Amino acid sequence: MRFSHRVDTSSPNAISLAEQQARRDGVTLTKLNDSNPTRHGLAPAGVPGVYEANPRGQSEARRALADFLSAGGADGDGVGDADGMRNDRPADPDRLYLLSSTSEAYSWLMKLLCDPGDAVLTPKPGYPLIESIARLENVDAVEYSQVYDGSWMIDIAEIEELLDASATDDEAPDIRALVLINPNNPTGSYVKPEERRRLVELCARHDVAIIADEVFYDYALEPFDGNARLAGERGVLTFALDGFSKMLAAPHAKVGWIQVSGPDDDVAEAMARLDVIADDFLPMSDIIADRIPDLLKDAVAQTSRVRERTRANLATLHALLDGDELGVVNVLRAEGGWNVLVRFPSSIDESELVLLLIHGHHATAQPGFFFDMTANGYLAVSLLPEPDVFEAGVRAILATVREALA
Amino acid sequence: MRFSHRVDTSSPNAISLAEQQARRDGVTLTKLNDSNPTRHGLAPAGVPGVYEANPRGQSEARRALADFLSAGGADGDGVGDADGMRNDRPADPDRLYLLSSTSEAYSWLMKLLCDPGDAVLTPKPGYPLIESIARLENVDAVEYSQVYDGSWMIDIAEIEELLDASATDDEAPDIRALVLINPNNPTGSYVKPEERRRLVELCARHDVAIIADEVFYDYALEPFDGNARLAGERGVLTFALDGFSKMLAAPHAKVGWIQVSGPDDDVAEAMARLDVIADDFLPMSDIIADRIPDLLKDAVAQTSRVRERTRANLATLHALLDGDELGVVNVLRAEGGWNVLVRFPSSIDESELVLLLIHGHHATAQPGFFFDMTANGYLAVSLLPEPDVFEAGVRAILATVREALA
Ligand SMILES: Cc1ncc(COP(=O)(O)O)c(C=O)c1O
Ligand SMILES: Cc1ncc(COP(=O)(O)O)c(C=O)c1O
Repeated sequence: MRFSHRVDTSSPNAISLAEQQARRDGVTLTKLNDSNPTRHGLAPAGVPGVYEANPRGQSEARRALADFLSAGGADGDGVGDADGMRNDRPADPDRLYLLSSTSEAYSWLMKLLCDPGDAVLTPKPGYPLIESIARLENVDAVEYSQVYDGSWMIDIAEIEELLDASATDDEAPDIRALVLINPNNPTGSYVKPEERRRLVELCARHDVAIIADEVFYDYALEPFDGNARLAGERGVLTFALDGFSKMLAAPHAKVGWIQVSGPDDDVAEAMARLDVIADDFLPMSDIIADRIPDLLKDAVAQTSRVRERTRANLATLHALLDGDELGVVNVLRAEGGWNVLVRFPSSIDESELVLLLIHGHHATAQPGFFFDMTANGYLAVSLLPEPDVFEAGVRAILATVREALA
Repeated sequence: MRFSHRVDTSSPNAISLAEQQARRDGVTLTKLNDSNPTRHGLAPAGVPGVYEANPRGQSEARRALADFLSAGGADGDGVGDADGMRNDRPADPDRLYLLSSTSEAYSWLMKLLCDPGDAVLTPKPGYPLIESIARLENVDAVEYSQVYDGSWMIDIAEIEELLDASATDDEAPDIRALVLINPNNPTGSYVKPEERRRLVELCARHDVAIIADEVFYDYALEPFDGNARLAGERGVLTFALDGFSKMLAAPHAKVGWIQVSGPDDDVAEAMARLDVIADDFLPMSDIIADRIPDLLKDAVAQTSRVRERTRANLATLHALLDGDELGVVNVLRAEGGWNVLVRFPSSIDESELVLLLIHGHHATAQPGFFFDMTANGYLAVSLLPEPDVFEAGVRAILATVREALA
């Protein structure tokens, strides 16, 4: 696997080696080089305890998380998970990095993999945050298409072309990672088993890592047997991202993680380098990490609570659209996640429609172009609002379309 | 002021503007675009409350912090603060960014100011973390010298030369910021009033921002009247960094902040751009932010507790060195901070000395080259250890020097 030149990988000096050896020999050193006040009895009463400063995150919290993931994660009802696939690969606490968000995870992984001007492949339509983070990291976000024909598919031929060009054409950007969002936002589409097999094979052949954003994984909107997490994939170096933002409906907790898997050599080299990055920023706060084991106990209940909301709202949406006399508004098939795409006659401009919605009905939604939809005529609608709010919002959309067509 | 091209500053679209206007008009919109589950009654019991998602950090925590800073901060005993300088400029909560560490602050500010290959000026000797973060951000760390002649001075002529070269020589790296560490680690030297006046003037003239790392500010080791924080400086765009790592002796809390000041236009443009960066990563966890007001109540007591430790250990160090018969080891004048530099005969190799210390006395310290000291013959010694541990460590150093010379 290829890595960036941003990470200093010079080998440890003689002094660090001697200190490590002393530790292995059970020798306790008098440390006049230790700036960690918690090891000298100086921690404040409000944040007691000794700070371990482990770059991958507090070991106890990682152990709790690994146990949780190995036991099947938050996927309480088993819907949307290929039979037993998760339990096949218990999560190893030593292959987890705790951090403050998946945004931070993207930022660390781009630093790990990309020199300035190198590229990552990102889905189109897709969540605009990734392109913005790539730009902050001096990385090119090159889009690959997802296409809709009743359900969404990844355009694998296009990805293959982009990877081939990257390998053979000096003018083409050097692609270092493929971002897969499973399920994608706002298309709601999971990565299908057959897509996954071909993409893993392609990435392995081209020495390209996979970054698998699975924050919405447990929010299946319909029963579907073929889904599986990429977390734990062994065929190619894979960084799976997840966190409490969606799993616990707690974006304000700021808990995320990276799970590293793949061929052992690649994993070892990736983690040695990721440790350097993590060591510069140091792990998430112990104030939060201390609470992770307990918070995880709520994950199954929280996921199913939110899933009930999203499924009920989706049913409401279908009922309202089916019952609408005009019959020109419909919803694209969504397999999972928190957003769905609503389509209306493309004679109406998306932006205009939302402005009419705001001014005429005091309601708002996101136009498709926010997510780089290739054509006009879509709104992305969140399935989270309380049922009465959601219903009122959908009715406002229908009324606005009617007015726009009148 | 010049900023990087990493930040997308395209103006808000018509929909965002209409939503903002509705908010100003007191209209509550039915939001079908809201993916924040805490606004829809879905937050978990363990992290209740509604997530504000303010990119600068929770407003209540920022207000508490601003009040604390305006009242004089943690500098309980008034030592080491130029008369009233801090109270002259009450901190504005709207010019504070809360984040998880000063490391993160450096990373955000380099993204804000530097395109790939641009440079920041960093002190030599100095703390190696900054160079490592710069490398992760594709930024050059160009060193300027601090020189010792009984106390440490900043080589301002060298900084002026570097800035002039940056402005006139196309081959020279484009310098976008001057990092001042006040007091510096491991030299312990504060930025003196006269140095500050000249550096602010130089930076203003060259359109270069100041990044002032003041994490050790409150840890004066000797009474000294001329010190002042750069936080609040108005002469040039200034980002002052501080946090709980040192102020509360709580590195495991992971609380840091940036205070922005300078000419109003520069501050406004810098903050508009910094908001974009902050918005991509979102603020620190509410689990921590909720505790900031209470934790601040401990700051004065914690700072003086740690300061007592560092001053007592420094007195012990002086007494042991003064009482040593050989009389070849001494300590460089340190004005503040947690580390001091101990000098021994340069006929002894630093690395050798530390290895002898580890193997012969089960003690360790940092060789000067870790901090880029220009000559051999120094150890950086932490003043944090418990008094008996510290004394044993210093005795071990003296014994090792004696053995090495024998
Ligand atoms: C695909 C995707 N990944 C990540 C995130 C953000 O996660 P975090 O809050 O952990 O940064 C979002 C938020 O909407 C998302 O849609
Ligand atoms: C000069 C300086 N700045 C910043 C830091 C680290 O601060 P934080 O833990 O907030 O990243 C240190 C730590 O030793 C330091 O010496």
